[in-house]
Amino acid sequence: MALPLVSRGKDAQAGACCAPIARQPLSEGDATELAVLLKAVADPVRLRLLSMIGSHAGGEACVCDLTDAFELTAPTISHHLKVLRTAGLIDGERRGTWVYYWIVPETVNRLGALFAR
Amino acid sequence: MALPLVSRGKDAQAGACCAPIARQPLSEGDATELAVLLKAVADPVRLRLLSMIGSHAGGEACVCDLTDAFELTAPTISHHLKVLRTAGLIDGERRGTWVYYWIVPETVNRLGALFAR
Repeated sequence: MALPLVSRGKDAQAGACCAPIARQPLSEGDATELAVLLKAVADPVRLRLLSMIGSHAGGEACVCDLTDAFELTAPTISHHLKVLRTAGLIDGERRGTWVYYWIVPETVNRLGALFAR
Repeated sequence: MALPLVSRGKDAQAGACCAPIARQPLSEGDATELAVLLKAVADPVRLRLLSMIGSHAGGEACVCDLTDAFELTAPTISHHLKVLRTAGLIDGERRGTWVYYWIVPETVNRLGALFAR
C-alpha cells in the first residue's frame, strides 16, 4: 500500500497546527515551520501584495493590477509573488498574457489562528 | 497646548490598524510598521518564547522558566526577549533576582486581526 506522503503537508497547511500562541507552548517543529511562513509575510511589499490580491474584485488579481502601485521593476514584483507562492500564501495560474493570483485562505487562517486571542 | 505626541503609537498598538489582509489594501505606512512586527516574530526561538510566556501559569514567566527549554546561552535568550520587548509583543519587570515577562495582548491581537478571515 502506498503511503500518503503528500497528506501531512496538506494537513498542516489546512490549519491543523497550532493553538493560539498565548495559550500553549509551540513545539520546535511547529515553530520552525511557522517562522518560515512569517518570514514570507514580514516584508512591506509582500504584505501590500497580499492585501491587494485578497481585496481585489473577484478575489483574484492579475499581475497587471499589481505593478502600478509600486515603484519597483516587474522582476522585483515577480520575485515577491514567488516568495508568497512558495510559502503557500497565494496561488496562481496563467490565462492568456497574464498570470492571475489569489490568496490561499487556509494558510492565512493558520496565521490568524496563531495570533487569535 | 501640548500635542499628545505619544498617543499615536499607543493607538496603533491598541489595534486601530488594520483591516484583515484579505479584505482591504494596506497603506505603505501600515505595511512598513506591520513588517517590523512580523520580523520580530518570524523566528523559531522567539515564537517559542512568546508561546511559553503566554501559556505560563499566571500569564507571566520568569527568565528562569524559559532558558531550560533551549540549548542556547543566557545572553542569546536575552537578545531574543529584547527583540520581542522592543517590538511591543512582551513587557517585563525585575522582581528581586529575576526579570518576569508577560505578553502584551494588544500587539498580538493586532497580528490576529491582520490575518483574520
